[in-house]
Amino acid sequence: MKSKPSAGRVPIRVVQYGMGPIGQACARVLLGKARTGHALLVGALDISPALVGQRVGSLLGDTSDVIITSDAEETLALCKPNVVLHTTGSFLGRVKDQILRCVRAGAHVISSTEELTFPYYKYPEISEKIDAVAKDYGVVVMGTGVNPGYAMDTLALAATGVSTSAQRIEVDRIVDASLRRKPLQRKVGAGLSPGEFYARRDRGEFGHIGLRESLRIVAAGLGWVLDEIEEALEPILASRTLATEYFTVEPGHTAGIHQTAIGRCGGTERIRLTLKMYLGAEDPVDRVRIFGTPPIDMVVKGGIFGDTATVGSLVNAIPRVMEAPPGLHTMITLPVPRAFGV
Amino acid sequence: MKSKPSAGRVPIRVVQYGMGPIGQACARVLLGKARTGHALLVGALDISPALVGQRVGSLLGDTSDVIITSDAEETLALCKPNVVLHTTGSFLGRVKDQILRCVRAGAHVISSTEELTFPYYKYPEISEKIDAVAKDYGVVVMGTGVNPGYAMDTLALAATGVSTSAQRIEVDRIVDASLRRKPLQRKVGAGLSPGEFYARRDRGEFGHIGLRESLRIVAAGLGWVLDEIEEALEPILASRTLATEYFTVEPGHTAGIHQTAIGRCGGTERIRLTLKMYLGAEDPVDRVRIFGTPPIDMVVKGGIFGDTATVGSLVNAIPRVMEAPPGLHTMITLPVPRAFGV
Repeated sequence: MKSKPSAGRVPIRVVQYGMGPIGQACARVLLGKARTGHALLVGALDISPALVGQRVGSLLGDTSDVIITSDAEETLALCKPNVVLHTTGSFLGRVKDQILRCVRAGAHVISSTEELTFPYYKYPEISEKIDAVAKDYGVVVMGTGVNPGYAMDTLALAATGVSTSAQRIEVDRIVDASLRRKPLQRKVGAGLSPGEFYARRDRGEFGHIGLRESLRIVAAGLGWVLDEIEEALEPILASRTLATEYFTVEPGHTAGIHQTAIGRCGGTERIRLTLKMYLGAEDPVDRVRIFGTPPIDMVVKGGIFGDTATVGSLVNAIPRVMEAPPGLHTMITLPVPRAFGV
Repeated sequence: MKSKPSAGRVPIRVVQYGMGPIGQACARVLLGKARTGHALLVGALDISPALVGQRVGSLLGDTSDVIITSDAEETLALCKPNVVLHTTGSFLGRVKDQILRCVRAGAHVISSTEELTFPYYKYPEISEKIDAVAKDYGVVVMGTGVNPGYAMDTLALAATGVSTSAQRIEVDRIVDASLRRKPLQRKVGAGLSPGEFYARRDRGEFGHIGLRESLRIVAAGLGWVLDEIEEALEPILASRTLATEYFTVEPGHTAGIHQTAIGRCGGTERIRLTLKMYLGAEDPVDRVRIFGTPPIDMVVKGGIFGDTATVGSLVNAIPRVMEAPPGLHTMITLPVPRAFGV
């Protein structure tokens, strides 16, 4: 639905970097924004041989003639994007060169890299480097998504917007993983025996990435200095056979994860984040409770559907990075999040 | 509760301009922030003979030696505040000179003036003037509060933060006015006969100020150009005798207001704000529904308690105006709202 005449609007030129499930969903939304003149998909990057050379239009059932390419440097130079939506991985160490490449091509970068949503603690040097190079090139770099980036941090902060005091914050997110994409179902350990779950957990191989970043975002937003962070990851076991498009889980095997992150100041618990993502979750919800004045109990009924919301969070950041001062940003340094081009 | 050592922190110097119920509540919160080193109340202004000359400390049961004065120019010059919290009235035309006086004293201004929360349509010239003078003096001016400023606009926008599409937004706020301050109970017409209610309504004498501003904030945040705005104000009549500290309402007389504002684009309804403030409201709530992708149904259980929240909204804007570029701002040009000094 158009709400503004698109005549005269110069669409924002966007390259989609990473054409996995989330990248494709971003591209689809961007093609929709092209119809209202808000944004224009000018390039698409991936390294998968199954994707390179394909027309985005034929992949997504659209008329777009953009061809998926694998040479980022060349594509960025040719396409001259204002913004790159970057969706290639969770770990900042592995994707930082991709991000810097976009910056050096003069493009703002909005990335789904979970570790980039608040990178200052885990990656102080990379953070400094990205900030410096972004300032050199006059662009903004930021990480966002639904979680981390929104449901368990930015929205929780927004819920404190009228608090005159806040002793403690609790955020709960319960997700029915059976409706989500395959990589997410794998990420929550669907189908593993408890033994396999713990073995993989102890090797650091899975679990949700970003709970610690959410904790950092909330703390930074409130000026709280956490001197203790405690994290836990346990399986949620199936009580009956669960079947999705991708996995079958026998009773007693892993349906998903129960992950918590707690932040303390001076021994006192101040932030508790609880994430349950499992197949067959019966009461999906997002909930933020502020124990303070006034007390706040905010619920998003049914929860925020993650795959769509991640895409929304990335795309909606586009106009906000265009107007922000150059450098490395986070969700708390940008104006209040809201839909773009709807 | 302290979360950061206050050693080394330079408190933000604040003058409270207007010492009515909201101003006094702001002053009380500021005195609390002084204990953690976040802010320092350095002056207090009012014109009421009952207040001028009083110590803020004796008024609020605190040790503060700040004396309430009536000469704004002199007090601002002596106190050199970084920020003025301005709570003297709802109508921009009547308070603009007060605001400009603060700006010319080099202070950022955060005002509860409802019409300042989005002044561009009703007061284009005053808006331009304030923006220009604020830029000249290198300070920020903004209007905020709980409503307008948060519950029915900024929070609703934040709820669209992950939307990839949004056809329509509905915001409901139901407030039990019996728990609120006397001026608010008067504002909702408590105790009036239906005839008196309609007569006063038709003379434009009362009703909640700011629903139109909230509509404008939501529309501007989403880039929607409203070509039609419809407002309505009706009484909610008491079905039984209602008594508060200040008013007694006979059955059939006015318990409060039912006010709506609808914004349309091209004949299609896109935003509907519904505010019910009445004595004895049984299910106070704030609710935001986004009809789009993903659909969002967000509820603040029990509603956001207004008097406290207005104070929170004003005080919490302090660090955000300190870091924003000079000029006239609104809640959508500042970073995501969150608690300050908690």
